[in-house]
Amino acid sequence: MKYRIEKDTMGEVQVPADKYWGAQTERSRNNFKIGPSASMPKEIIAGFAYLKKAAAYANCDLGVLSIEKRDAIAAVCDEILAGKLDNQFPLVIWQTGSGTQSNMNLNEVIANRAQVLQGFEIGEGEQLIKANDDVNKSQSSNDTFPTAMHIAAYKSIIEITIPGVEKLRNTLDAKAKEFATVVKIGRTHLMDATPLTLGQELSGYVAQLNYGIKALKNTLAHLSEIALGGTAVGTGLNTPKGYDVKVAEYIAEFTGLPFFTAENKFEALAAHDAIVESHGALKQLAVSLNKIANDIRMLASGPRSGIGEILIPENEPGSSIMPGKVNPTQCEALTMVCAQIMGNDVSISVGGMQGHYELNVFKPMMAANFLQSARLLGDACVSFDEHCAQGIEPNYKRIKELVDNSLMLVTALNTKIGYYKAAEIAQTAHKNGTTLKEEAVRLGYVTAEDFDNWVKPEEMV
Amino acid sequence: MKYRIEKDTMGEVQVPADKYWGAQTERSRNNFKIGPSASMPKEIIAGFAYLKKAAAYANCDLGVLSIEKRDAIAAVCDEILAGKLDNQFPLVIWQTGSGTQSNMNLNEVIANRAQVLQGFEIGEGEQLIKANDDVNKSQSSNDTFPTAMHIAAYKSIIEITIPGVEKLRNTLDAKAKEFATVVKIGRTHLMDATPLTLGQELSGYVAQLNYGIKALKNTLAHLSEIALGGTAVGTGLNTPKGYDVKVAEYIAEFTGLPFFTAENKFEALAAHDAIVESHGALKQLAVSLNKIANDIRMLASGPRSGIGEILIPENEPGSSIMPGKVNPTQCEALTMVCAQIMGNDVSISVGGMQGHYELNVFKPMMAANFLQSARLLGDACVSFDEHCAQGIEPNYKRIKELVDNSLMLVTALNTKIGYYKAAEIAQTAHKNGTTLKEEAVRLGYVTAEDFDNWVKPEEMV
Amino acid sequence: MKYRIEKDTMGEVQVPADKYWGAQTERSRNNFKIGPSASMPKEIIAGFAYLKKAAAYANCDLGVLSIEKRDAIAAVCDEILAGKLDNQFPLVIWQTGSGTQSNMNLNEVIANRAQVLQGFEIGEGEQLIKANDDVNKSQSSNDTFPTAMHIAAYKSIIEITIPGVEKLRNTLDAKAKEFATVVKIGRTHLMDATPLTLGQELSGYVAQLNYGIKALKNTLAHLSEIALGGTAVGTGLNTPKGYDVKVAEYIAEFTGLPFFTAENKFEALAAHDAIVESHGALKQLAVSLNKIANDIRMLASGPRSGIGEILIPENEPGSSIMPGKVNPTQCEALTMVCAQIMGNDVSISVGGMQGHYELNVFKPMMAANFLQSARLLGDACVSFDEHCAQGIEPNYKRIKELVDNSLMLVTALNTKIGYYKAAEIAQTAHKNGTTLKEEAVRLGYVTAEDFDNWVKPEEMV
Amino acid sequence: MKYRIEKDTMGEVQVPADKYWGAQTERSRNNFKIGPSASMPKEIIAGFAYLKKAAAYANCDLGVLSIEKRDAIAAVCDEILAGKLDNQFPLVIWQTGSGTQSNMNLNEVIANRAQVLQGFEIGEGEQLIKANDDVNKSQSSNDTFPTAMHIAAYKSIIEITIPGVEKLRNTLDAKAKEFATVVKIGRTHLMDATPLTLGQELSGYVAQLNYGIKALKNTLAHLSEIALGGTAVGTGLNTPKGYDVKVAEYIAEFTGLPFFTAENKFEALAAHDAIVESHGALKQLAVSLNKIANDIRMLASGPRSGIGEILIPENEPGSSIMPGKVNPTQCEALTMVCAQIMGNDVSISVGGMQGHYELNVFKPMMAANFLQSARLLGDACVSFDEHCAQGIEPNYKRIKELVDNSLMLVTALNTKIGYYKAAEIAQTAHKNGTTLKEEAVRLGYVTAEDFDNWVKPEEMV
Repeated sequence: MKYRIEKDTMGEVQVPADKYWGAQTERSRNNFKIGPSASMPKEIIAGFAYLKKAAAYANCDLGVLSIEKRDAIAAVCDEILAGKLDNQFPLVIWQTGSGTQSNMNLNEVIANRAQVLQGFEIGEGEQLIKANDDVNKSQSSNDTFPTAMHIAAYKSIIEITIPGVEKLRNTLDAKAKEFATVVKIGRTHLMDATPLTLGQELSGYVAQLNYGIKALKNTLAHLSEIALGGTAVGTGLNTPKGYDVKVAEYIAEFTGLPFFTAENKFEALAAHDAIVESHGALKQLAVSLNKIANDIRMLASGPRSGIGEILIPENEPGSSIMPGKVNPTQCEALTMVCAQIMGNDVSISVGGMQGHYELNVFKPMMAANFLQSARLLGDACVSFDEHCAQGIEPNYKRIKELVDNSLMLVTALNTKIGYYKAAEIAQTAHKNGTTLKEEAVRLGYVTAEDFDNWVKPEEMV
Repeated sequence: MKYRIEKDTMGEVQVPADKYWGAQTERSRNNFKIGPSASMPKEIIAGFAYLKKAAAYANCDLGVLSIEKRDAIAAVCDEILAGKLDNQFPLVIWQTGSGTQSNMNLNEVIANRAQVLQGFEIGEGEQLIKANDDVNKSQSSNDTFPTAMHIAAYKSIIEITIPGVEKLRNTLDAKAKEFATVVKIGRTHLMDATPLTLGQELSGYVAQLNYGIKALKNTLAHLSEIALGGTAVGTGLNTPKGYDVKVAEYIAEFTGLPFFTAENKFEALAAHDAIVESHGALKQLAVSLNKIANDIRMLASGPRSGIGEILIPENEPGSSIMPGKVNPTQCEALTMVCAQIMGNDVSISVGGMQGHYELNVFKPMMAANFLQSARLLGDACVSFDEHCAQGIEPNYKRIKELVDNSLMLVTALNTKIGYYKAAEIAQTAHKNGTTLKEEAVRLGYVTAEDFDNWVKPEEMV
Repeated sequence: MKYRIEKDTMGEVQVPADKYWGAQTERSRNNFKIGPSASMPKEIIAGFAYLKKAAAYANCDLGVLSIEKRDAIAAVCDEILAGKLDNQFPLVIWQTGSGTQSNMNLNEVIANRAQVLQGFEIGEGEQLIKANDDVNKSQSSNDTFPTAMHIAAYKSIIEITIPGVEKLRNTLDAKAKEFATVVKIGRTHLMDATPLTLGQELSGYVAQLNYGIKALKNTLAHLSEIALGGTAVGTGLNTPKGYDVKVAEYIAEFTGLPFFTAENKFEALAAHDAIVESHGALKQLAVSLNKIANDIRMLASGPRSGIGEILIPENEPGSSIMPGKVNPTQCEALTMVCAQIMGNDVSISVGGMQGHYELNVFKPMMAANFLQSARLLGDACVSFDEHCAQGIEPNYKRIKELVDNSLMLVTALNTKIGYYKAAEIAQTAHKNGTTLKEEAVRLGYVTAEDFDNWVKPEEMV
Repeated sequence: MKYRIEKDTMGEVQVPADKYWGAQTERSRNNFKIGPSASMPKEIIAGFAYLKKAAAYANCDLGVLSIEKRDAIAAVCDEILAGKLDNQFPLVIWQTGSGTQSNMNLNEVIANRAQVLQGFEIGEGEQLIKANDDVNKSQSSNDTFPTAMHIAAYKSIIEITIPGVEKLRNTLDAKAKEFATVVKIGRTHLMDATPLTLGQELSGYVAQLNYGIKALKNTLAHLSEIALGGTAVGTGLNTPKGYDVKVAEYIAEFTGLPFFTAENKFEALAAHDAIVESHGALKQLAVSLNKIANDIRMLASGPRSGIGEILIPENEPGSSIMPGKVNPTQCEALTMVCAQIMGNDVSISVGGMQGHYELNVFKPMMAANFLQSARLLGDACVSFDEHCAQGIEPNYKRIKELVDNSLMLVTALNTKIGYYKAAEIAQTAHKNGTTLKEEAVRLGYVTAEDFDNWVKPEEMV
């Protein structure tokens, strides 16, 4: 491999000749060989591209950066957002806890790429755009990284998580309405209970997801606040007047999302409670989805020795010999995602609770866990929706058989023949393994006709 | 001990003669000897007392319970709420996961106590109020326990948690304003950084608590929804028409809190996402408070070998021999509470994710953890406020010494003598262990007078 | 209430006249009103009683305490261990993170009670035993509290947890052997699979518990190490030579457990990894028990609309109307305990990871969570064993019906008639809802006699 | 892109023409678009390669596979282990919870690659090796995936985690010995306390890591047990006699690690407590390392306004302007890793506790979290060791200054001039901000000479 020499305040570093990054990125590559390379989430890189462009615009408007430089910076940011420089960001999550080195990675790549766009070779010619002086102008790692976190988190929730959950919610809602009159046995403590309709059962899941979506949306206000303008410790040292408000406006414009400058920049650097808060809602959704997916796989269990009240799509061979072994694979993927998010919530909280003084230094870890959860939750809901929920069908025969066979329906006789005779019927049927109707007639308490008139599960729901 | 004989559908049970509870409570006592006795939270008992009274009123209004019975039930509920029957609730958290046996404990105590209020001995005379038929009328364990959970959770948050957090927030806010101009060194990565004011530092904590309170309040809407009226599986079987709305109105009236009937009763029995959601906000506050308490104890560390920028009250002997060893005991109590809440959040989420079909059977465990968190958080904030936060004072001498001694102030010279000379001054001072001013003058770059005019920390905040 | 005046280095304090505790305990009562009073676990109080007695003996042996004082201290410690002074320990978990105030609570109670045993009134006469100088001699809160933690933790595991888990393990093992030939359908992905025996299924649970017990026992070596002798920071300042070894020997003698002095006292004060390690094993057992209890309740589900392969004892009325509704209440209590322990593990780890320099100050919280887990796990296993596991019986009829009805048995025909014909039989039976035998005969591939000879589930296990 | 047609029991599928995988892999790619592609850990793929080769050998030995086929399968397995087929495994973690589809991915790739090694084009010619019949012979997803998990987990711990932790432990141990006589101030509750040596302080960290390594090694016995031979439900259906023992021996031979066949195959499929257990030890190490890294960054804090007792290497520019701002970036990376592992432990436990009947279906998620923790922990320890721990040096001047300045040394005077005079000296010095010596002499209690003779911190350690 060919190398070129780059310098920073600590001296010279060899950098791969064909890469745009510079000395500080290369130092970080060498000093943090922890886990797979390039693990810093691409959503964070994109968040930086938005904010570097916004900073260039704000700096230009406020007279501290030329239009030429602004446009040079913005042009590279646009390339990054278009995915053209994806192999220029080799750093890992497990670096400086402020994400300083990823900030420098962006600064270096933008500066060097801008130089190339001017017609130079990488690292040659007089540098038009300087990484620290121009790209990082009016910024610090300490306010850029949290800003990139909020941009990435907000976008992921809006673009991936919420649409995914809503898609599944809508399908379940449609199914709930479609099966509104399909009377089935209820189960409490996993034991047979009084009946309800399949639609009612599914409506509970819809309600869960609605509450979860609402809870998630409640957290967006805090995520909308942008740390940029706080610089090193939150005081905004070295920023031109009005910069914080303006740069947030540009970020809002470029992303199309309602970002605004944080009311308190000290909180925005030293704590990431917005991430904790918002991930708390993702975790709530994971709790809900685990219940839903678990119910669905139990309801679909069988084909002969399970509950078998619903049918779910067969997406892949479950077993080469056994027809009907439709494994609930989408339920399994979804519940694994839920378990992952449960853990991610702890990682995020543990990181969030350990900030020191003016800076929380668990930023990249918190961001990575958040973004994983947001994406997995959205993706898994879409997958579950398309490959499972949309295909849920009642097994009418089985549902009817279980309802007809249930001893719980005896409650309907209480008001007709009294509690004690009703209980006797139920107990006898349980003991003999017979139906209520058989025993009711045999005991002479009810005629078959009356039984059919009085014991109507559909009137118990 | 003397016993009386009580019966239920499974037969006879010996019950301590002086206790109001009956057969089912006694069976539970014997069957669930897990952990200390009577661990079911008293807030849950109170929640039941509210709902039993409300149910009696609603049943009476709807014509299924006499006024006489209503008033008899209500009278005992009022006694329970007044704390007069505290030793009548011996059951543990670790019972049936629906809390059925605590529901029966209430039913039995109310029925037997009502009988005594009529002038009978316990368990004698014809029973005026029947535990199942009257006290539990139009109810099921499955909808009463979640209702008691929401009443208890909501009340605890409103009466204990939020006032406690707000009290601390207000003190910190006042301190932030009081110390708005006390310039001190900033610290990022635990390392010296540019200055800020003590007031700014504290304002970050205030912001954290404000966000936390807002997040917690956001969850109250979900907690306001009451499961009562769903009965066994959510269909409301065996309730009179209009009962669910009416009983919620009575609960709202009796508690003075804005409860209303849950839109979807299936969700309200089968999932406890409202508890998960609300506890998520408690956990967010724990994350914030851990950061705040940790900062305060680091800032107060010393007296000679620590940071020592603030002074906190001395509440108890820290050490018999060493004056000035003021241990940050309130910080320690608070951070222990925060760690507890972190774990409680996992317990609650693990319980919440495992509901099956029509019923979640982790109810008592979820309730107990929630109520512990809500109370500990409120109590610990009050304790921390009264015994620590209110007494925070700047150690002006130490703060000034550290600011004056800081190398970071050199940034103020950049615009006067250029980056390289400024850096040389700082590096020389670091190497020699001297001050910036000494080296600036010695190197001949700045006069002492100019130094004092140019390097003003108070203009850097 | 009557009070007497007690003094410490900070001045006078009013203490309830009938209590043995002194000024520092009373200060703590007033300064830490967090959660219910007297929440410090009684096992910790007992741990202190053991170590105070052992310290008195070791101090006496080494010539720094008189025999008279030794015996006076030991006499009170014995009273404490006998439960005679239970109402003298009013402090809460949420105090100083080193548990200093509970150490002082013990010191004060022992000193004042010793005085009374000499014939004086509380707080009167010249103090024979001084709380700090005698009871606390050669000790510090910093090494006593961790010692009390290890004593309490070790004892709880040995006396409660392991016996409880072993009791359940033994029952399941006996059941596994009893049902070694009961062939039943297997289930993977919750779907029907090839058969196994009920005994094999239960043997998996036994294996889980055996691994868990072994893992728990592996942690005891670390718990055996005792911090006592490290005093304030681990150096053992102010202890006589040989004290640390000797005091551990006395603790071993008095408790009958193999305690010895910690090899590294700095670790023993500054970290509580032994607690983290041992609780990790408790958490592993919780993971196992949750799986086991969940399986059992699913296997017992029904009576008509569930799996119904096993029968579990009916311990309490499940429902007044529905016979056979035997709710798996012991499974519910046990799984709630498991969820609790999952959270306790996080609290303990969060506390353990946050020690600072020479002292971890999350001690009481870590201890309380550990002891709760140890006890709940042991108690819940005993309860589950006695009220559920011992009564597990196969529902032979149901088990046979499901095996006979299974499509999965077709695999036995592969080697007789070839894969494709076997698959055709299975697919046809699935489509028609018939049995394999019916279709095998109807399709003309196998005679009824051959079918019975070839398809033997008992040979597939 | 060019495609070829592959078939399975559900019909035809288009597969990229240049890929070795077949229909089932391609279906999984399409059905599980959750998170980044190819997220299934490469260690699991390698584990499969080992076990597929071992199964071929065992099958051949036992007469159910020809030598020709054995060698063809083994040849591809060796290529996989050599990393030559890395782009043939496109599946994600979030698939079937049994990892069935990754098992099929291996089966398909091995079969098709073997065909190509015979001189055919992919998918052409009569298939020498059949994916199901040959590569998967005597296996099921249900026993292969757990086997791959154990191989991957064990290897990662042995090859990455333990060497990494030991490397750091050794460095800290050498430093502890090197600084065994460097007397420094101790700190409890973050407050000044009696002195100890820097070596003693570091020895506590060494002890922590030793306990952690021991705890981790304790878990290896359980991880050594291999599920292979259990097939679908643990009964070993369709395996030749002696297969389970033999295949484990081959795995042991090929990996060089002490694997053996699991004593109870039902446990080995239905639960993954070995993973839970072993990760518990990783979590314990994370707890320890968080404490250690946190201490080190606090001790190194400064350069002017922190503790500053140790110096750590400067690896990258901390700030362009401020010399001496050596950010503790390795501490930050390591503590982020610790927080990650805390969460991973919860994910793993949540997955482990939710197995159903004969199969746990959280396998890929559990494996992925385990392997991430094992690698991050090892890598981060190496990075921390090389770029931080090895360079730790005492700041002798600062350490001496703090010791000399400490008020805590007054305890040494107790035995010379009595407690009350000693306390008066300390209190006066604290009040006046002077040294003990100054006040001792000024008050006339001690001569300067005596003070120097009596107050020797080096004798207090």
